[in-house]
Amino acid sequence: MIHLLSTLLAVWLGLAVTPSSAQDPLPSWRDGPARQAILRFVDTVTTPGSSGFVPPPERIAVFDNDGTLWVEQPAYTQLLFALDRVRALDPQNPDWATREPFKSAIAGDMAGLAAAGERGLLELVMATHAGMTPEAFQATASAWLETARHPRFGRRFDSLVYQPMLELMSFLRTRGFKTYIVSGGGIELVRAFAERVYGIPPEQVVGSTIVTTLVQQDGRAILIREPKVDFIDDKAGKPVAINRHIGRRPIAAFGNSDGDLEMLQWTTEGAGPRLGVIIRHDDAEREYAYDRASHVGRLDKALDMASARGWTIVSMKTDWATIFPGTP
Amino acid sequence: MIHLLSTLLAVWLGLAVTPSSAQDPLPSWRDGPARQAILRFVDTVTTPGSSGFVPPPERIAVFDNDGTLWVEQPAYTQLLFALDRVRALDPQNPDWATREPFKSAIAGDMAGLAAAGERGLLELVMATHAGMTPEAFQATASAWLETARHPRFGRRFDSLVYQPMLELMSFLRTRGFKTYIVSGGGIELVRAFAERVYGIPPEQVVGSTIVTTLVQQDGRAILIREPKVDFIDDKAGKPVAINRHIGRRPIAAFGNSDGDLEMLQWTTEGAGPRLGVIIRHDDAEREYAYDRASHVGRLDKALDMASARGWTIVSMKTDWATIFPGTP
Repeated sequence: MIHLLSTLLAVWLGLAVTPSSAQDPLPSWRDGPARQAILRFVDTVTTPGSSGFVPPPERIAVFDNDGTLWVEQPAYTQLLFALDRVRALDPQNPDWATREPFKSAIAGDMAGLAAAGERGLLELVMATHAGMTPEAFQATASAWLETARHPRFGRRFDSLVYQPMLELMSFLRTRGFKTYIVSGGGIELVRAFAERVYGIPPEQVVGSTIVTTLVQQDGRAILIREPKVDFIDDKAGKPVAINRHIGRRPIAAFGNSDGDLEMLQWTTEGAGPRLGVIIRHDDAEREYAYDRASHVGRLDKALDMASARGWTIVSMKTDWATIFPGTP
Repeated sequence: MIHLLSTLLAVWLGLAVTPSSAQDPLPSWRDGPARQAILRFVDTVTTPGSSGFVPPPERIAVFDNDGTLWVEQPAYTQLLFALDRVRALDPQNPDWATREPFKSAIAGDMAGLAAAGERGLLELVMATHAGMTPEAFQATASAWLETARHPRFGRRFDSLVYQPMLELMSFLRTRGFKTYIVSGGGIELVRAFAERVYGIPPEQVVGSTIVTTLVQQDGRAILIREPKVDFIDDKAGKPVAINRHIGRRPIAAFGNSDGDLEMLQWTTEGAGPRLGVIIRHDDAEREYAYDRASHVGRLDKALDMASARGWTIVSMKTDWATIFPGTP
């Protein structure tokens, strides 16, 4: 109760003070065109009487996850998770020793894995993500996040989230926005940490799905994940999934790769003030630098469209004073 | 701003007063076992320190729509809408004059329609619900709701909602619940009126979907509804859709037919206090009376399971003082 009252009070105060007199909501953002464009947009849509005012229920902001909210190099976290699961499940699957792409996965043979192509990677994910309930899968994913460490930074994967984006999502929520993740990654993997790490509840996570079926087992209804793709929430799939889950066109979209192009396009083509933001990985020292030639998180066509359409481009190197929480 | 502050104040006061001193939140519910079971459940899960206390984020309540929140007799509203659309689109489709099920639909030949079976009805829905953007479809549905009248009651379809259920959803929301619709009907049709009539925003509507595709048209990204079933949100599909959209098992579920059986089963099989409620249509005078033999909203297996598992059965005749808003 005390907590609830103090939360209400905080919301009240947050609304009552003018933005300029409030504490800086984005301390990890350096002053510059990106920060200014974001603050200007938020002021426009939240100022009553402004010609661009948007009522709170329509303040929907969508965020890609891999490369927009957390690190996606040297490989998507979900792939590293799947590879670890293949090794963990290896003893129960003797046929994997001679069967690709499992053989390469177990041997850590990246060239062999690359040869298996997207289809091979999908097979790895299917084999390790299915045959269990969503709750059991999330428990496995949570346990993995506890122990797995990033190969370069030696930190938990869910600590390699971008501090400026955490501040931005929190700021948007205090200004009446509802924040959603719209990820090409698996919906249940993101849900395993989104509430704890991003403050985003499971119902505000949209992602790729595998077929899930209700079966009756000893008089109980159980959901079982099947090794079969249901929906790939990437590229043109993102607006489709947003329409199905949210049922409104967002007014702000944040991405970092060509997989986010259609989401940013569809969002910013709506009427009234719109914000499209591309996070640009140009900081090899503190994070990574990659764009048009990268196999992971390629940013090529969306970079051209960003220039052509005036989307805001955030330079990690220039615009972010801090990259990860707890680092200078 | 004034409105927001008064809302905050109302929430604050609503939380600060004890339930017994508050005004009756369910004035259209007569005292009896059903009302008592609902109030007892809500008190249990919302009383801090209670062994059955459930934190607000997990207070998810799901409601079927047809027959649970609004009238579904003499036919599902969506079917009546589709039939009206067939008649409206008839001039542009000369081949319909000789093609079933369109021929029967245009002639109002119910026997012919029945002969077309479920497949035929699906074909009608597809032909009239596709080939446009979701926004255009919702505009068409909204316009239809303005002019269409129920054959028996002569009222707008969206006024034939159950007053006791409106009160119940509102009451649950003041007690920290998030209310969702989980309908076998089309998601976009329900979204066309759910916020205005039920206070449920589009992102809290789950329903059946047809395939929707993003196409590029003159440099703009457009979502187009295709005449192809994507997902039927009925029976075993309901828990699957709830898991995908919400990502949590609800703690309360409300339905009225065998189509809701798995949703109630899966909801009430979760750990801790759970509420399963069946609305029983036993009031031929004020609404309709139907159950095991009905083609629309058949209640047979779910009625047996309700008895076996102690779900709450609401008698419209006995438990509801009022059926529709604005009627005695």
